[in-house]
Amino acid sequence: MNTQSSQNKKAVILLSGGLDSATAAAIAKSEGYELYAISFSYGQRHDKELECARRVGASAGVVRHEVVDFDLGKWGGSSLTSSMDVPLDRDGAHMAEDIPSTYVPARNTIFLSFGLAYAEVVGADTIIIGANQLDYSGYPDCRQEYLRAFEDMANLATKAATVEGRHFTVYAPLLHLSKAEIISRGIDLGVDYSLTWSCYQGLAVPCGRCDSCILRAEGFKAAGIPDPLITHHTLG
Amino acid sequence: MNTQSSQNKKAVILLSGGLDSATAAAIAKSEGYELYAISFSYGQRHDKELECARRVGASAGVVRHEVVDFDLGKWGGSSLTSSMDVPLDRDGAHMAEDIPSTYVPARNTIFLSFGLAYAEVVGADTIIIGANQLDYSGYPDCRQEYLRAFEDMANLATKAATVEGRHFTVYAPLLHLSKAEIISRGIDLGVDYSLTWSCYQGLAVPCGRCDSCILRAEGFKAAGIPDPLITHHTLG
Repeated sequence: MNTQSSQNKKAVILLSGGLDSATAAAIAKSEGYELYAISFSYGQRHDKELECARRVGASAGVVRHEVVDFDLGKWGGSSLTSSMDVPLDRDGAHMAEDIPSTYVPARNTIFLSFGLAYAEVVGADTIIIGANQLDYSGYPDCRQEYLRAFEDMANLATKAATVEGRHFTVYAPLLHLSKAEIISRGIDLGVDYSLTWSCYQGLAVPCGRCDSCILRAEGFKAAGIPDPLITHHTLG
Repeated sequence: MNTQSSQNKKAVILLSGGLDSATAAAIAKSEGYELYAISFSYGQRHDKELECARRVGASAGVVRHEVVDFDLGKWGGSSLTSSMDVPLDRDGAHMAEDIPSTYVPARNTIFLSFGLAYAEVVGADTIIIGANQLDYSGYPDCRQEYLRAFEDMANLATKAATVEGRHFTVYAPLLHLSKAEIISRGIDLGVDYSLTWSCYQGLAVPCGRCDSCILRAEGFKAAGIPDPLITHHTLG
């Protein structure tokens, strides 16, 4: 894991449609990466984030965007892929207590694995993920030691690494940033956050009560910037 | 990585419909594992191996069998998921020279990632894969060091490992066996190899000329046993 890669400048980026991956795309773009986006339709509650991922990708000028479909809802295990309720109205202390039901088993591992396959095919040495380990919901697959272990595995898994001498880097530019820092950085880089979607629920407007909405609102507040998505929805 | 796990006796097993995973299932069953099978429809050339995986799973008495669908053919990179020709009529020396076009980028990483998700949900500590590094086609993701790296990553990736204290083991019972040893072991355990399918091509009968057919034929020959699949097709 590097904070910045010294390899070729082609990168696969996991784009969820949320504000983190939108910011990661903008940072990578500003550093000269040519971006190959990949998004996932995996049985999540709503398609809104995929529409947003498409818009974010177009806005970031990705050269190609693949959407991979599969169904993680079939075996349950998460409130994001089943009819279980997502937790609402939790403050930071409660969020820090445990891993919430919105955890999806092995999600980032599956996403990064497809990202690795895509990277091998398009000739990209870098896989970018908008994971951050500060203001997040406690997911184990957003931590540095996990991402480093994925990278080690990736460099033993592929023909590109074992025969062709390529080296894969998992690049997580937001890893040590707070939500407010992410937003400030994105604003500086011109990210249009009205294109992004964070809410776990598939309503017409963000619920404002799930962990993801709360973390987003706190981030915008701490950054001293109004959330253009909320303004957009409030103004109609 | 263990050669045998000392954890709970629930295991997810990757079942391809080939002879290796059928033998791995029989070995695990004989060791008392309760098997949760997972197979993949990933854009491979033909559905025959999935039909065989179903039959092998039923024959091994798996308690549940999930098939996960996604399309790896969309971005190419392999003769198994595209219209590229598979290599034919190669001897062992030629097979050892390089990784063939039948290599599918990051395939086992994607398969094992889904296996990990499934294992976390059903409460299995072990993920079984029929990889073997002796008589294989040179795929990097069939080697011990790769499987160990996947296991290390898995134990950092999941709620089960990081919060609940579970430990995932990738168990590859065939890793150091020759094809002949695999077949002999399977015969001893009563595996019905007429249920399995190895040929890379989707013809009505095995082509006998792709690497997979050649390795299978050499394995049966060295084991001194006729291949019941060939007998079956020859007799009608």
